Amino acid sequence: MNAEELFRNIQRKKSYLCVGLDTDYKKIPRMLLDNEYPIFEFNKHIIDATVDFVVAYKPNLAFYESMGAAGYMSLEMTITYLKKHYPDIFIIADAKRGDIGNTSRMYASAYLKTMGCDAITLSPYMGYDSISPFLEVDGKWVVILALTSNEGSKDFQQLELKGEKQLFEHVITVSAGWGTVNNTMYVVGATKADELSNIRKLIPEHFLLVPGIGSQGGSLADVAVHGMNDRCGLLVNASRSILYADVTNKFEQAAREEASKLQKQMEVTLKNKNLL
Amino acid sequence: MNAEELFRNIQRKKSYLCVGLDTDYKKIPRMLLDNEYPIFEFNKHIIDATVDFVVAYKPNLAFYESMGAAGYMSLEMTITYLKKHYPDIFIIADAKRGDIGNTSRMYASAYLKTMGCDAITLSPYMGYDSISPFLEVDGKWVVILALTSNEGSKDFQQLELKGEKQLFEHVITVSAGWGTVNNTMYVVGATKADELSNIRKLIPEHFLLVPGIGSQGGSLADVAVHGMNDRCGLLVNASRSILYADVTNKFEQAAREEASKLQKQMEVTLKNKNLL
Repeated sequence: MNAEELFRNIQRKKSYLCVGLDTDYKKIPRMLLDNEYPIFEFNKHIIDATVDFVVAYKPNLAFYESMGAAGYMSLEMTITYLKKHYPDIFIIADAKRGDIGNTSRMYASAYLKTMGCDAITLSPYMGYDSISPFLEVDGKWVVILALTSNEGSKDFQQLELKGEKQLFEHVITVSAGWGTVNNTMYVVGATKADELSNIRKLIPEHFLLVPGIGSQGGSLADVAVHGMNDRCGLLVNASRSILYADVTNKFEQAAREEASKLQKQMEVTLKNKNLL
Repeated sequence: MNAEELFRNIQRKKSYLCVGLDTDYKKIPRMLLDNEYPIFEFNKHIIDATVDFVVAYKPNLAFYESMGAAGYMSLEMTITYLKKHYPDIFIIADAKRGDIGNTSRMYASAYLKTMGCDAITLSPYMGYDSISPFLEVDGKWVVILALTSNEGSKDFQQLELKGEKQLFEHVITVSAGWGTVNNTMYVVGATKADELSNIRKLIPEHFLLVPGIGSQGGSLADVAVHGMNDRCGLLVNASRSILYADVTNKFEQAAREEASKLQKQMEVTLKNKNLL
């Protein structure tokens, strides 16, 4: 999927919502635990309930790895289910990987080829040859950590370099030259909405993956005002606020309502920008 | 295992060799492919053949993830095998993870608790709260990327900050305050041996995990001269040069000889420093 196709999906759904599948065994409704793969079962229900309002899903690999081989199986089943039933959905493996070239090549093969995700999140610390093996996979995307939503983002990302720039700005400027607007996105936390206008000056055309609304406290309206470009250029992620909106047998309906609520807010912001 | 226990293992084995289990399905001897878990089978043979000369093994998770759920199963079997048969061995999950707190907590649980590895490699880009959930696991270690062995390490790690320090130096100085010498190590590539003396000024007592000898071209002698402290303070990793020393049915013997050769060199460097 290229940036134009992603934008067309956004227009069709009137939404740039990404749902993070941070599926926690301890938090899913108890009645699902009798299934052989309860994590997959939960994901399937959440996907079916929310997909009308969603353009992307983002499984957070930590939650699957914490369940061992059975968790990994649930992840594979979730991706397979998405690709079969909802082929227009953009799938982001939230992996935050990045290693020397021959290792990054293995990760690229695992998630972008074998598993068939559309994108993978990457940490930039190891530089160009840790990212380039992913860029070499045709039609797939890297999502590079720039300015994250957590408290610790100030420790290194916001360090001032010689010449006044902050580290995350340098990461963005340099790495934007490695790929194109059709294969590179950046993670910018919604809790850093005030920085979005500056980031848009550096990369006016790139898509941004924005976590941190909902449980983490960022504002969707602020993100839209400061981050939206003329092809939307945003995927805004919500995880816990949708997945665990309710933990009884009404969890699907509650998740659907939460997703629908966000979609309606997004529709307004897209109209304000004359993109619908 | 604390730093003193690790040092005693190094003295007993006269070795600070870590073998990287970067087990590539495409490279293992063909006759192993008939096994149900060929990756595990290969690891078991390599471990049995080399363990006399080795203090640590470091499975590189990319190689297991690239095989899907079966690969993940092979990883679990490898760790279980090591813990059962060689309980003194230090096991490093080479994962290069790092995410917001609740996600890092899942990774910590997966690799340090459930799987029972002694240590996990982490990328520092997301700062304190991406690392601290790992430090909270009693008796376990984080291995933080500082200055890596690859070409791309110059892209960001060696950036000059305001005030003349390079980024990796700042990462070391700041993060050394988050843990102790008994739960924090740093990755410094053997290809950067000239920087080791400077790094030793910043962290004289910490253990360093040093990849990049063998296939990547770093020199063990240089690493020992510039990096060794009075408790050794080094784990030097070799992967491909040992695993794939031979790909016929003589692979075990060849791997043993390669490991033995490195151990002998290490013994000399330990004696030179009066540590044996």
